[in-house]
Amino acid sequence: MTDSKDAHLEAERLARVIAEKIPFNREMGFEFDFADEDRPVLKFEMKPELVGNFMRGNLHGGVISSSLDVIGGFAAFCALLKRIDLDKEDVDNVFAKLGTIDLRVDYLRPGLGRSFQAEAYILRVGRKVAVTRMELHNDSNDLVAAGTGAYIVG
Amino acid sequence: MTDSKDAHLEAERLARVIAEKIPFNREMGFEFDFADEDRPVLKFEMKPELVGNFMRGNLHGGVISSSLDVIGGFAAFCALLKRIDLDKEDVDNVFAKLGTIDLRVDYLRPGLGRSFQAEAYILRVGRKVAVTRMELHNDSNDLVAAGTGAYIVG
Amino acid sequence: MTDSKDAHLEAERLARVIAEKIPFNREMGFEFDFADEDRPVLKFEMKPELVGNFMRGNLHGGVISSSLDVIGGFAAFCALLKRIDLDKEDVDNVFAKLGTIDLRVDYLRPGLGRSFQAEAYILRVGRKVAVTRMELHNDSNDLVAAGTGAYIVG
Amino acid sequence: MTDSKDAHLEAERLARVIAEKIPFNREMGFEFDFADEDRPVLKFEMKPELVGNFMRGNLHGGVISSSLDVIGGFAAFCALLKRIDLDKEDVDNVFAKLGTIDLRVDYLRPGLGRSFQAEAYILRVGRKVAVTRMELHNDSNDLVAAGTGAYIVG
Repeated sequence: MTDSKDAHLEAERLARVIAEKIPFNREMGFEFDFADEDRPVLKFEMKPELVGNFMRGNLHGGVISSSLDVIGGFAAFCALLKRIDLDKEDVDNVFAKLGTIDLRVDYLRPGLGRSFQAEAYILRVGRKVAVTRMELHNDSNDLVAAGTGAYIVG
Repeated sequence: MTDSKDAHLEAERLARVIAEKIPFNREMGFEFDFADEDRPVLKFEMKPELVGNFMRGNLHGGVISSSLDVIGGFAAFCALLKRIDLDKEDVDNVFAKLGTIDLRVDYLRPGLGRSFQAEAYILRVGRKVAVTRMELHNDSNDLVAAGTGAYIVG
Repeated sequence: MTDSKDAHLEAERLARVIAEKIPFNREMGFEFDFADEDRPVLKFEMKPELVGNFMRGNLHGGVISSSLDVIGGFAAFCALLKRIDLDKEDVDNVFAKLGTIDLRVDYLRPGLGRSFQAEAYILRVGRKVAVTRMELHNDSNDLVAAGTGAYIVG
Repeated sequence: MTDSKDAHLEAERLARVIAEKIPFNREMGFEFDFADEDRPVLKFEMKPELVGNFMRGNLHGGVISSSLDVIGGFAAFCALLKRIDLDKEDVDNVFAKLGTIDLRVDYLRPGLGRSFQAEAYILRVGRKVAVTRMELHNDSNDLVAAGTGAYIVG
């Protein structure tokens, strides 16, 4: 129905808003990477403010859950963009209506590394609710954490 | 078995370490309040860096999940302190061995307010795993979020 | 707005349908108890078909999660009944539209006992989503399991 | 360290015990399929006792969560078998020590179909805790539900 090129451009535009205009995301240093057009990735670098264990220097659990929530919600948003009529619906409004209902995070391995990336996989996008699975890897490709999020979509 | 007064002092000592030495917690402005000796509370003030929605100015979901994880883990730690022999076991070591296995967060209402406080309730503290329920309220006493955490305890 | 007496009668009517007409619930032996008008309880007796560990004779985890899901959904339904206009809306339709989005179950203690009862507490009932907390106790009042459910409500 | 052939035979032996000796699993009609040696599958047929919605005839949520819990725990058990010395450790004891800590289930689509199969994927098997992801598909290969389980492993 919609021109997928435009949906992609809209996704990139919103990604910049999310990374640059949302204060907490800016504090975390979250950035989106669209190298794989079908699966946007959230990337961030280790820095002192993100540390949760001052002895070992690993990521705080809150940084981990934040990154999973952000990429899960963004993946749900991208899936919504593909099915709406971009000429008729207000993309910013679609994003504004999106909200996390609940989130599960499984902390699997210590968040050690110089950089991290989070990805999301759509389990279902319905008219009311979207469900996504998320994974966070470090720069050694260790699976640091996994998660599942339910999002309200309108 | 243990002198509960000493367990309480040890809990307060660790609370200061958690709030002051863990960089991410310091960024969040997390502080513990022991006004109710039996139920320590995590408090923090709204500030620009914690905002997740720049239109409405509410807390980022990541701040919410972080606060629930921190108070849940601390409540599990306090429960452990009450049953170990403080003269024989190293309290710092008990804390170091504590880790979040998984966390569920339910985002119930927008995180609006000038200040927030998170509390935790023990569901079970076993020899290997502790399970806690957590709640986050704003300064109007609205229930902003609820959660459940499973923690490995040694 | 609505006559609370009628809402209660409707809740009792639907409870009978849920317990008697839903085959799986009948297999489990689930029954509702309205002794406390404000907090319906799901009760069931131990029987051989519900056993998950043939050495120790405790409840199967699936029975536990089923009971929590059923009472959580029913509590959400009762909360909905209190805010709709019973003369205008079709109660059966309200129930038919209710569905579990997701469920977390924490298995806290072995499901041992002659009988069990599950209760639910509303965390939030919105226009789209309801969230409830649930608990399962045995006849010694041990907390066997706890849970959280998110339900779509229309 | 261990002979993988024997580990596989032990897994098949325990699978028969789980399916045939655990009363609730027998009620559900759960059976294991080892066609893919590396990923055992739990299969079951639709039958009247498993129905949760007598109008539409779909699976009860409790059957769905049960199947995910059983296959998740079994996958964790199989992973444990591969790393223990089968000549020294008692396999039945390894299984007896395994227990579900908590479970998340996402109900994605109506459980409609003539037969269903559940699979599990290991996220991590540590010395104390194993975490698995699970999926349930119907015979049209629709993803009916997904889940995550944390298991204590000894």
